[in-house]
Amino acid sequence: MAETPAPATVGMAMEDVDTPALLVDLDAFERNLKRMADAIEGSAARLRPHSKTHKCPVVALRQMAYGAVGACCQKVGEAEAMVYGGVPDVLVSNQIVGAPKLARLAALARQAKVGVCADDAGNVSDLDAAAENAGVVLDVLVEIDVGAERCGVAPGTPALELAQTIDKAGNLSFGGLQAYHGRSQHIRAYDERRRAAENAIALTKDTVALLAEHGLECDIVGGAGTGTYQFEATSGVYNELQAGSYVFMDVDYGENENEGGGAFADFENSLFVYATVMSRVTDERAMLDAGLKALSIDSGMPRLWETPGVDFVGASDEHGKLAIGDAAASGNRNLRVGDKVQLVPGHVDPTVNLYDWYVGIRNGHVESLWPITARGLLR
Amino acid sequence: MAETPAPATVGMAMEDVDTPALLVDLDAFERNLKRMADAIEGSAARLRPHSKTHKCPVVALRQMAYGAVGACCQKVGEAEAMVYGGVPDVLVSNQIVGAPKLARLAALARQAKVGVCADDAGNVSDLDAAAENAGVVLDVLVEIDVGAERCGVAPGTPALELAQTIDKAGNLSFGGLQAYHGRSQHIRAYDERRRAAENAIALTKDTVALLAEHGLECDIVGGAGTGTYQFEATSGVYNELQAGSYVFMDVDYGENENEGGGAFADFENSLFVYATVMSRVTDERAMLDAGLKALSIDSGMPRLWETPGVDFVGASDEHGKLAIGDAAASGNRNLRVGDKVQLVPGHVDPTVNLYDWYVGIRNGHVESLWPITARGLLR
Repeated sequence: MAETPAPATVGMAMEDVDTPALLVDLDAFERNLKRMADAIEGSAARLRPHSKTHKCPVVALRQMAYGAVGACCQKVGEAEAMVYGGVPDVLVSNQIVGAPKLARLAALARQAKVGVCADDAGNVSDLDAAAENAGVVLDVLVEIDVGAERCGVAPGTPALELAQTIDKAGNLSFGGLQAYHGRSQHIRAYDERRRAAENAIALTKDTVALLAEHGLECDIVGGAGTGTYQFEATSGVYNELQAGSYVFMDVDYGENENEGGGAFADFENSLFVYATVMSRVTDERAMLDAGLKALSIDSGMPRLWETPGVDFVGASDEHGKLAIGDAAASGNRNLRVGDKVQLVPGHVDPTVNLYDWYVGIRNGHVESLWPITARGLLR
Repeated sequence: MAETPAPATVGMAMEDVDTPALLVDLDAFERNLKRMADAIEGSAARLRPHSKTHKCPVVALRQMAYGAVGACCQKVGEAEAMVYGGVPDVLVSNQIVGAPKLARLAALARQAKVGVCADDAGNVSDLDAAAENAGVVLDVLVEIDVGAERCGVAPGTPALELAQTIDKAGNLSFGGLQAYHGRSQHIRAYDERRRAAENAIALTKDTVALLAEHGLECDIVGGAGTGTYQFEATSGVYNELQAGSYVFMDVDYGENENEGGGAFADFENSLFVYATVMSRVTDERAMLDAGLKALSIDSGMPRLWETPGVDFVGASDEHGKLAIGDAAASGNRNLRVGDKVQLVPGHVDPTVNLYDWYVGIRNGHVESLWPITARGLLR
């Protein structure tokens, strides 16, 4: 509702930030931006990072400063927030259904370059009507299912037919293919993950060729996430990468393996939930003030940052439970009521969506407060 | 950040509400209020419903209209939202740690009756200092651990010692005992749940007696939730019940059993996530526009309301996956792109915290839009 108060002021020492709060290690964040830029330099793929991860135009603009061509969004509200925050080129990498949302999407195309995806002929017809009403031409990509088993028509002929439907619509422009394989992102074993990506790449390549045979060129062939971006980047098929989590990382992505079996270390943890010990009744247990409303456990528990011997073992609505193992014996500090800890989120996207502010930290002090303007924009 | 736009306007047909949105069936909601009032009528226990469930002063005031004496809160921000929304008596049923929060809590006690819990002598000292600074006397309850293994000192002597510390503090008033057994609320079998509650009641009774022997009377002996309220209500020990979920219910509470083995049916589902089918590529699958940012799956998946043969089987950030079983064969409607469905949330509290508006429905139309003013108030 009304803006929630910020948990910090600029210049304050990190230890004085009120909790729970979302901290960004600005040095690590910037290194992640540079690492991705370096990693894809020289490939045919440009970067269009996903704003569903960060929900913040400030982050999107920083990504563009490091070479990104715009932003992906999942919701019209996210697209509005990005455009109004200064991002001139957004792709809604998702289906948009229903008259109120279609009217907003089309209206937004008067203010910025706007693309959207479709997997249904009826929806294409609705998109066409909305575009006509707004007096715009909307770029519409065909989403194909390359293994995610979520949205998207089958590759090949069904994709061609839908692309032709878009192409024939008076107020739409065929924009290319959306070919994101969400399920492959968190396959732990490198070779297995690569195979899943290669399968998606092959299906996409064939569909691009089929479309070309019928005179339909793909401006955008988009997909890829933080788990597979290196495969799509060098595929010669995809020309846009939609990775989001790379800027912040989380426990889930940290459990992927790199080539040869080591931990996935392309990017660093730069995002943390900052929490306070609020109860410390037994030696074996400490309770934090951060529970289900401060972090999302859908993909597993958060992990304590640089606090060996202490595990986050459970969350209720407003409490996080820490199990204290050999922390004292190992020379680790003994957590007391009032102590603050940093947690690496289990899953970054739904965790970020619980907050209104990023607290940017550099050299132990608050450098910036970035509003998470797309927080809660579900529609 | 800025207020998110409401998904509806008053008077609109329910089918026109934009999605995802949080619907309240106002008739069922009011029946739940009456059912709880009827259930505890004649018992020694008064009702102080938990606002962590609904985060909305409008709901708290409706509960008070049906006899509740005030509201419970978990966070200072929730307490502020309730007091500023017209609730004159709030109990923070939780520990509050850290100077900024303590200053706010004490300041709030100048505007309303404010209580808080403690389980640590150092925290009691901090509470005393904050109360002195604000020129108020704060009511402080001792939280005892009656089986939750979360916060709270042990019943008996440790509770007595902390109560005496509070009683001696110059700016605090000993307010009683907080004895909530969170883990017992969702024990499915009635007899086992009753035994857990009876154990908590016995521990609490002994502690109340010990305190009385030492001249310390408990204004409040508080605890109980929607799963056990009937036991504490008739215990003769507890005088305040802190149930929250009863107003809305959810899948998790719906899986409790009543006496004799039937389903727990003391209250009705009155809260629903309204969602739209956004993709329908295969016969076996439909995708909804409601995922992890529209509902919390920490306690299990949501359930479709009055849609037999269709199961909600998975959620990603912005998508909910439905598995279509024998829906067509069973005569159920065939879900199409654009159709809207009602979902019973798996877990009500963290789901509500994702929304800024309740859309109140009566007779198929929108009657009210209630702002969820404490949404996101984590601190």
